[in-house]
Amino acid sequence: MLQLSRSVARASRACRAFSAGIDASKLQVIKTTTPQILPPPEKLTFGELFSDHMLEIDWTADDGWAAPVIKPTGNFSLHPAICGLHYAVQCFEGAKAYKDESGALRTFRLDMNLKRMNDSMSRSGMPGLTESDQEELGKLVRELVRIDNHMVPDAPGYSLYLRPTAIGTHVALGLTPPRAVKWYCITCPVGPYFKTGFKPVKLLASDEYTRAFYGGTGAYKVGANYGTGIMPFTECAKQGFSQILWLLPEGDDFLITEVGTMNLFVSWVNEKGEKELITAPLGELVLPGVTRDSIITISKATGINVAERRFYWSEFAKALSENRVLEVFGAGTAAIVAPVDAISFRGEMLQIPCDEKVGSGPLAKFFYDEISAMQRGAKPSPSEKPWSMVI
Amino acid sequence: MLQLSRSVARASRACRAFSAGIDASKLQVIKTTTPQILPPPEKLTFGELFSDHMLEIDWTADDGWAAPVIKPTGNFSLHPAICGLHYAVQCFEGAKAYKDESGALRTFRLDMNLKRMNDSMSRSGMPGLTESDQEELGKLVRELVRIDNHMVPDAPGYSLYLRPTAIGTHVALGLTPPRAVKWYCITCPVGPYFKTGFKPVKLLASDEYTRAFYGGTGAYKVGANYGTGIMPFTECAKQGFSQILWLLPEGDDFLITEVGTMNLFVSWVNEKGEKELITAPLGELVLPGVTRDSIITISKATGINVAERRFYWSEFAKALSENRVLEVFGAGTAAIVAPVDAISFRGEMLQIPCDEKVGSGPLAKFFYDEISAMQRGAKPSPSEKPWSMVI
Repeated sequence: MLQLSRSVARASRACRAFSAGIDASKLQVIKTTTPQILPPPEKLTFGELFSDHMLEIDWTADDGWAAPVIKPTGNFSLHPAICGLHYAVQCFEGAKAYKDESGALRTFRLDMNLKRMNDSMSRSGMPGLTESDQEELGKLVRELVRIDNHMVPDAPGYSLYLRPTAIGTHVALGLTPPRAVKWYCITCPVGPYFKTGFKPVKLLASDEYTRAFYGGTGAYKVGANYGTGIMPFTECAKQGFSQILWLLPEGDDFLITEVGTMNLFVSWVNEKGEKELITAPLGELVLPGVTRDSIITISKATGINVAERRFYWSEFAKALSENRVLEVFGAGTAAIVAPVDAISFRGEMLQIPCDEKVGSGPLAKFFYDEISAMQRGAKPSPSEKPWSMVI
Repeated sequence: MLQLSRSVARASRACRAFSAGIDASKLQVIKTTTPQILPPPEKLTFGELFSDHMLEIDWTADDGWAAPVIKPTGNFSLHPAICGLHYAVQCFEGAKAYKDESGALRTFRLDMNLKRMNDSMSRSGMPGLTESDQEELGKLVRELVRIDNHMVPDAPGYSLYLRPTAIGTHVALGLTPPRAVKWYCITCPVGPYFKTGFKPVKLLASDEYTRAFYGGTGAYKVGANYGTGIMPFTECAKQGFSQILWLLPEGDDFLITEVGTMNLFVSWVNEKGEKELITAPLGELVLPGVTRDSIITISKATGINVAERRFYWSEFAKALSENRVLEVFGAGTAAIVAPVDAISFRGEMLQIPCDEKVGSGPLAKFFYDEISAMQRGAKPSPSEKPWSMVI
């Protein structure tokens, strides 16, 4: 039993006293003297090349948020006992910045990522981000992109991947809300997930491992949801599958929740004979994905019958056997969409309709094209506030 | 969707090539020039004062384990993109070293901690620890304790808390098995959890948050299981409770699993009228606790009727209403035992029998006394291989 109550009381007192919010006007910029040259796009591997600069903002319970700093990307000096390394007090976001046809820099729905990060930080015991904090962070991340303008690839499908991160830097082995936090953003130039057109993926539907459960952290983008998937993913890859289809046992059946690190969409003709695009509802089990939300919003604006509701493996398998499944795809920031052409469940390989020439079903391709165009500002978004923002 | 398959294949190739195991004979020792003086025992707060030295061993997929180093406790230099900070690729152990009456240093069941750490590392996607690695780590940790001999408090109930830790230091945002890992051990002089005799704790039985689910990581000592508890613990503390009683919904009932960061034991007269000490069975939902195992082994050796089986809230509540519950306590390395005198469930406060003079029921006190004596070598352990080992 780790000592909790005293420290919680202490943290609560400190939180009441906390006042300094994030203030972009206090930004200090230290530029690198050795800027990189962006490699040829085809050499880019996801998340392995980092841009020249990073944004860093420290928080303490006593003093609130310190002045933000943009400085050359480099190592942190961290105590071996910080809670970010022992108790997974950590969360992150994935967003992207783009160069449009005019060469202008753009971000896509970054406000939604920063709002979600408030939820993830709070769920991890870290301080939340007020609306003002989120706005200031938006300005700061855009300034970071501007400074690393030379690292943003200038081709359709290419982008600068943004990785806002928050870690607990409180030095103590007691399990308590951290009294020190580091918020930072690193960035990576990245290529399209599918470099030469779509390539549909084969899934392993797992009845052995689960991603999330009621009362857990499945709806938050916390590190704890990801590392726990590595071993199952590795087993799945050894069997020749690209991703796990995450199921949650419920009685004798399974809820269908997510795929790999993406939300899942199924286009089918439902039991009522209606064509329907279905995805698991928000709540405790699935991440409120930005791409998920974009797909739902575009569907509603274009008359696609979209449903957010719980659906079960038995329903899906029945529809598949009755040829009512039209297509299946994952949706996430890295790939936008990932078409699926096969799912293995308990040793049986189920074929999913997929136009093998295109490498995708029609809806996945439609959403990919729509969202790609909106990201680069080539098409207006179906929303009052534009999704794509010129920096 | 983060790129997996290629990296997994690469990691598997590397693992096949891996050969260098942990070798204690290669230890390099760099001693501090400014050793601390151990503060008076009463000034010790759990996990806030660190000893002079730490043990550090780096692993890479290409070269295996590097030479171990014991050096002054100090900050790590870590890249902001390591998987230990993004995907919670991290696990730890909690063990203790003691000074016995003759002044000799002792560890207690450290081999069991290192064996469990093999499981936690593997479940996190990190390399496992072979039996030889575990033996070498045992030697190295004991050498660390020897070097920081002056930091081991010399009084009953006091000890040097040992925190072996492993983190993924692979620098890449793709979700893959880490190709670099840092294994380290820091230590803290600590006092007894209950400084002035037992003080029973009040629990909040949560039907809102869950600790673990089938197919998850509940049976492993990974960071992901701990940080996710901070927010629920904070809410619980605000309501005046010391710990959460973790329940897992099953139909209309709840499985009773753990308490706070401890295993849970209930002493009751079961439905058959037999006096029984019950705890949740090993499997996917509970941590295979070292103190849990010690209690079970001591029970078997002393004729206490101990049962490891699933038990439900409804059974417990019925037994409580029929005055068949004799005592309830948590069990873990930090406290050894933590007696419980009340549990709140859905707004109703249930009183648990507890000798208010002693602050404990008879079994909790018996196990505390037995295990304390065994830890300091004052009593033999009920096992072929002694639990307490002189360093």
